[in-house]
Amino acid sequence: MRLTPATELEYRCKRLQEEMALSGLDAVIILQNADLFYFTGTIQSGNLYVPKEGQPVYMVRRDAGRARMESGLKEVCPFASMKDIPRILADYGYAEPKRIGMEMDVLPVNLFERYRKVYPQAEYSDATPIIRKVRMIKSHYEIHIMQDAADQVDKVYRRARDVIREGMTDLELAAELEYVARREGHLGLIRMRAFNGEMMFGHTFSGADSAVPAYTDTPLGGMGPSPSFGQGASLKPIGRNEPIIVDFAGSYDGYLVDQTRVFVIGALSDRLRKGYDDMLKIQERMVAMAPERPTWGEIYDECLFMAEKLGYAESFMGNRGAQVSFIGHGIGVEIDEYPFLARGFHDQRLEPGMAFAFEPKVVFPGEGAVGIEDTFYLTESGLKQLTHSDQSLVVI
Amino acid sequence: MRLTPATELEYRCKRLQEEMALSGLDAVIILQNADLFYFTGTIQSGNLYVPKEGQPVYMVRRDAGRARMESGLKEVCPFASMKDIPRILADYGYAEPKRIGMEMDVLPVNLFERYRKVYPQAEYSDATPIIRKVRMIKSHYEIHIMQDAADQVDKVYRRARDVIREGMTDLELAAELEYVARREGHLGLIRMRAFNGEMMFGHTFSGADSAVPAYTDTPLGGMGPSPSFGQGASLKPIGRNEPIIVDFAGSYDGYLVDQTRVFVIGALSDRLRKGYDDMLKIQERMVAMAPERPTWGEIYDECLFMAEKLGYAESFMGNRGAQVSFIGHGIGVEIDEYPFLARGFHDQRLEPGMAFAFEPKVVFPGEGAVGIEDTFYLTESGLKQLTHSDQSLVVI
Repeated sequence: MRLTPATELEYRCKRLQEEMALSGLDAVIILQNADLFYFTGTIQSGNLYVPKEGQPVYMVRRDAGRARMESGLKEVCPFASMKDIPRILADYGYAEPKRIGMEMDVLPVNLFERYRKVYPQAEYSDATPIIRKVRMIKSHYEIHIMQDAADQVDKVYRRARDVIREGMTDLELAAELEYVARREGHLGLIRMRAFNGEMMFGHTFSGADSAVPAYTDTPLGGMGPSPSFGQGASLKPIGRNEPIIVDFAGSYDGYLVDQTRVFVIGALSDRLRKGYDDMLKIQERMVAMAPERPTWGEIYDECLFMAEKLGYAESFMGNRGAQVSFIGHGIGVEIDEYPFLARGFHDQRLEPGMAFAFEPKVVFPGEGAVGIEDTFYLTESGLKQLTHSDQSLVVI
Repeated sequence: MRLTPATELEYRCKRLQEEMALSGLDAVIILQNADLFYFTGTIQSGNLYVPKEGQPVYMVRRDAGRARMESGLKEVCPFASMKDIPRILADYGYAEPKRIGMEMDVLPVNLFERYRKVYPQAEYSDATPIIRKVRMIKSHYEIHIMQDAADQVDKVYRRARDVIREGMTDLELAAELEYVARREGHLGLIRMRAFNGEMMFGHTFSGADSAVPAYTDTPLGGMGPSPSFGQGASLKPIGRNEPIIVDFAGSYDGYLVDQTRVFVIGALSDRLRKGYDDMLKIQERMVAMAPERPTWGEIYDECLFMAEKLGYAESFMGNRGAQVSFIGHGIGVEIDEYPFLARGFHDQRLEPGMAFAFEPKVVFPGEGAVGIEDTFYLTESGLKQLTHSDQSLVVI
């Protein structure tokens, strides 16, 4: 278990302040757990006030003692009421902010309205784009944690190889894999920034169930245990000669990696087998392209073009009519970070420090899905792969 | 696996329309997963438009086919853009709404602003209080599901009795129990309405760790696996003669129950043993009071008074300085529903159909916590207990 080093927190705050200067913000007030963890090293409830210059102030409702223990920030103070914020900040010598950024994509309306009353004269705007921009470039420290998460997900993969049996249900398999991950320190939940973005561990499903579209913004969906949570594993028994998908997010010390492998008891049809090999080729193409630092959208366009040439126009990245418009997603504290390797993102390029999951997948309704997913990061000297389980189709 | 009956959905919608009439709302637009599930029977992404009179319209972005399969609503239509909403509603013959309710406590600012542009002349207000009011009265159908969730959590309790060993870590114990629950259909995540309210399965911890306050609005917190998720089980090994808390939410077909039991290898100190027995007495007092239909706050006040008389003024419901101001919480699709058995709630009474978890707990810093939790519901003929594991302290 790591405590985020104070130097890490200082650097992150400095980077945010640089972005704030470019955006003309006097202050950013951070409340959401994923962002709090990134900028404070803990998620004790309260808010982090980041001024345009100087030390951030972490005002903690519950529990301040624990925040002092877990956070490397210099200024941690208890607070009981939002009315106290101006006084606290005045005590630190900070002027009243005129332009304030908050996390408008995740902050509920009612909570925002209460914060707005603290500085009713100020102008409020969305700080999430700059927060995401700072978080998108990973440090060596962060990559080390993600390597631990990659080792965890490899243990999950190895367990899947050992435990998959004909007739066990998708849910039984999921339970076996989650058990391994939890013992290795997986948080259980997967943080997802999108509204209603509930996720835990990942998706384990087999055969035609892997080709069922779901409400989630993912290429594969799955039936899930009930319509109340219609994604991932269901009670379907695993059969012979059908693809078994283990799309699993490793989670360690607050960081995620994402990996998908395909298993089969017996053999896949020629069509699915070729689909799997073709998805590997698309991943190879991305690996070749990435060091040239293309735009996010160029990667998507090139892979889509390649998929179409290979005959997957109506099956790539989801069922016909339910295809998602991305092929990869940034990953770190949340599973939906920058960069978005997605349609239309042509104004931003891959840069050293970016980490992302890449997941070419192809769906044949009524039969099943196949594909591959790994987590990568770009360095000055090239693309590195974090997840490291064998990429071969696993025949059981 | 259940599909919510159409008659259930019709009744729920009718109840909401009655509340809308009292609040003067022309329409309620529902987006959040827990509410969507309650009013549609599924959570396919999109929105549910509930007019003041007539059929609700479920506009589904992804996946409309699946929404038709899983929802018992009559009107399910695909939709691609918010701009289409006025046209869709005009096709159904609904007049332009002037007063619209939305879920302001969970709806992010950016998403709300996009919806607000659909009917820019309308007046928007918070529909969550009336949604919560409707959801607070459970039907027989809902209670049956919660009975299944109670059976699940009893299996978890039995597994704990079998598997607890000296030297195993809290996290290892949690993994064992979660494994049992998942195989029985637990969704894994626990829906919590509060902002940043992340929760999964529940809290398993032992000894002094059970007395560590956390950021969560719960009487007990726990260290958790990392400061990135500082609640619940950590890597602490379980020792002799210390309380082992299994606070676990059963989850089945989208519904929850909550139960806490205490285990010990060897024996508890006299102080903890007495604490446990006293918490049982407080629960007995609540069971005697509830059929008289007191206000929510009266239950809290009476139990707090009793706890203080028993000597727990500074340890009841949390560490001194981190005590929570409730003793129970409504439960159903979310773990933080109405009724709030909490300080100051004197304008609403317990009513038949209400389901709630009741959890008197006492915390001794450095030593550990003890307490009991069960899930109850009130009927016309008295209070019924849903969770049914043996209430004795389990000595291993």
